[in-house]
Amino acid sequence: MHLNIAVLEGDGIGPEVVAQSIKCLRSVEETFGHSFTFKKGLIGATAIKKTGTPLPDETLEICKNTDATLFGALGLPEFDDNPKAKVWPEQGLLKLRKELGLFANIRPVKVFPSLVKQSPLPKKSVKDTDLVIFRELSGGIYYGDKAVGNDQSSATDTCTYTEAEISRIAHLAFKSARSRKKKVTLVDKANVLETSRLWRRVVHSISESYPDVTLDCLFIDNAAVQMILNPSQFDVILTDNMFGDILSDQGSVIAGSIGLLPSASVGLEYAMFEPIHGSYPDAKGKNIANPVASILSMAMLLQHFKMDEESDAVVAAVLKSFSKKIVTPDIMGSSKYGTNYVGDFIADNIM
Amino acid sequence: MHLNIAVLEGDGIGPEVVAQSIKCLRSVEETFGHSFTFKKGLIGATAIKKTGTPLPDETLEICKNTDATLFGALGLPEFDDNPKAKVWPEQGLLKLRKELGLFANIRPVKVFPSLVKQSPLPKKSVKDTDLVIFRELSGGIYYGDKAVGNDQSSATDTCTYTEAEISRIAHLAFKSARSRKKKVTLVDKANVLETSRLWRRVVHSISESYPDVTLDCLFIDNAAVQMILNPSQFDVILTDNMFGDILSDQGSVIAGSIGLLPSASVGLEYAMFEPIHGSYPDAKGKNIANPVASILSMAMLLQHFKMDEESDAVVAAVLKSFSKKIVTPDIMGSSKYGTNYVGDFIADNIM
Ligand SMILES: CC(C)[C@H](C(=O)O)[C@@H](O)C(=O)O
Ligand SMILES: CC(C)[C@H](C(=O)O)[C@@H](O)C(=O)O
Repeated sequence: MHLNIAVLEGDGIGPEVVAQSIKCLRSVEETFGHSFTFKKGLIGATAIKKTGTPLPDETLEICKNTDATLFGALGLPEFDDNPKAKVWPEQGLLKLRKELGLFANIRPVKVFPSLVKQSPLPKKSVKDTDLVIFRELSGGIYYGDKAVGNDQSSATDTCTYTEAEISRIAHLAFKSARSRKKKVTLVDKANVLETSRLWRRVVHSISESYPDVTLDCLFIDNAAVQMILNPSQFDVILTDNMFGDILSDQGSVIAGSIGLLPSASVGLEYAMFEPIHGSYPDAKGKNIANPVASILSMAMLLQHFKMDEESDAVVAAVLKSFSKKIVTPDIMGSSKYGTNYVGDFIADNIM
Repeated sequence: MHLNIAVLEGDGIGPEVVAQSIKCLRSVEETFGHSFTFKKGLIGATAIKKTGTPLPDETLEICKNTDATLFGALGLPEFDDNPKAKVWPEQGLLKLRKELGLFANIRPVKVFPSLVKQSPLPKKSVKDTDLVIFRELSGGIYYGDKAVGNDQSSATDTCTYTEAEISRIAHLAFKSARSRKKKVTLVDKANVLETSRLWRRVVHSISESYPDVTLDCLFIDNAAVQMILNPSQFDVILTDNMFGDILSDQGSVIAGSIGLLPSASVGLEYAMFEPIHGSYPDAKGKNIANPVASILSMAMLLQHFKMDEESDAVVAAVLKSFSKKIVTPDIMGSSKYGTNYVGDFIADNIM
């Protein structure tokens, strides 16, 4: 198979981790006889510095004219600490998700048996964790109207959801549950928010078409507790953009490191694959960043194109790196292996 | 001192736990020579069933005409599971907070030394936890305009904050930090939300009046991770209504049980004291609910009226119950002590 892949490295550790995924893709090419071509585009702080905008048109064109996008990470503290800034890196990612119509962000949280003891949570509650979060990605308070009062003394964000927006991601979640443990948990704040009440109505009614799947509803405050106390109770979690952002980062605690969790962002036309971690600028250039989240995101890309065998081979190589303890220091403090070495090991073991 | 106290027991375990606080207040009366009178009011599902509304005017009047309100808990699943309901219990609490002008919800999270091993989190990361969350309580998305589309196929919630709303709670947070570890952490999502960017601007500028206090800013997704991985890094957390709801429930995981955490909701005129736990309907009438969160909320009430010695005596009695292992089963699975017995023990030991 031939694939054209857009590569948006972004900021901080983005380029370093994406480089390992590309290395692994080269290995997949060789082993399975595929051909991948890569086209790089600027995004985030790096793009702002070079072009003045966090998502240059050219980058968007590259993403639209390739088969899928591999995304690194973005953000720099100099922008976070400047509330008066007019442009900032995250706007690039938000615009990209919107323009590509990526309405579902799929975040699996799995505790790898050989890493169970890395989790700071009690072994018994994490060891059977195997959940996937379906986070709505192109609506809600992230994209609603925003306003600042004339005298800068007030500000407004708006959260709107339509039945159509809820419905399309709900169907994905229920379909996924069908091939899993047959349980969907809707996380919302229906005792306070009108949008949550719409989510409940729509999701309840969709659930009728999936009689083999159980539907549970949980308030976000309780869900945030349950994710820590008893994550193995979950199968598929379905939630909105903002709650999904919070819950899935929390999920990284279960897995033992935020450097492990991949995600796929999909829409009707396009798909993008991005680790859930940020740009971790303090680690940039130190060869300590964990490449696994990026590599597993790349494995989700392969799966997206029905290259199941290839995807499984990548995951197997990652598992081998765990069992051989070829891991970065976030996983094992005493480890002497760096980003590159771990990337090489995984690439070499794709077979 | 004489105090008139409004007592809103609410639903589920509300009446049982509040009864223990009243028992303890009787003991404070005796030991310290005060006099407390109590006036009960209906709220929540109980009020809906008796009067059709979750906050009868009479209840509001009682709260306005007493010195402080002691609140139990509210909510019933039969309302949660009915997204078409026109009234539901939580509306009563939200309206009450608004009508009483309770703009700051103060939620201390402390790990009691004798309970460190109850926490599911690693001992070393929780043992020094002593933080307090200042959650804005009368604004944000909880109270903004809400709308449902004509054909019921869309819904909107609005989140608005004004400089004045942010400013009044920020000052409380900085003042509190002054008498503590001198650090304020603002939790927001300033890389996405306009309201968060207003919070950053206002809080940054207020922080200049408190040069002895350090200000940190954290995105909510990262904060949710840090609360679990390293809660002892926090001193005062300042955040908006929605993020505060999520973060403070998460805080209960650190402490080992949600049945332990109290809160004070304060405004310019009124104050209300409420455990952070919910109504836990499954436990109702079983004499297993932990009364400690309610009793510690009552201790915050005493402190509010400068009865520091009295408040300390209540806390000391609670600590004694921990060290004597006179605790409910949520704390120690094998415990045979019930709500009443624990309440009696604490009341008897206020001296
Ligand atoms: C960078 C930021 C805008 C983004 C989000 O909030 O969606 C990130 O936290 C994520 O989860 O991908
Ligand atoms: C009952 C509910 C409306 C309430 C809230 O979200 O504020 C509760 O969760 C709390 O934290 O006091």
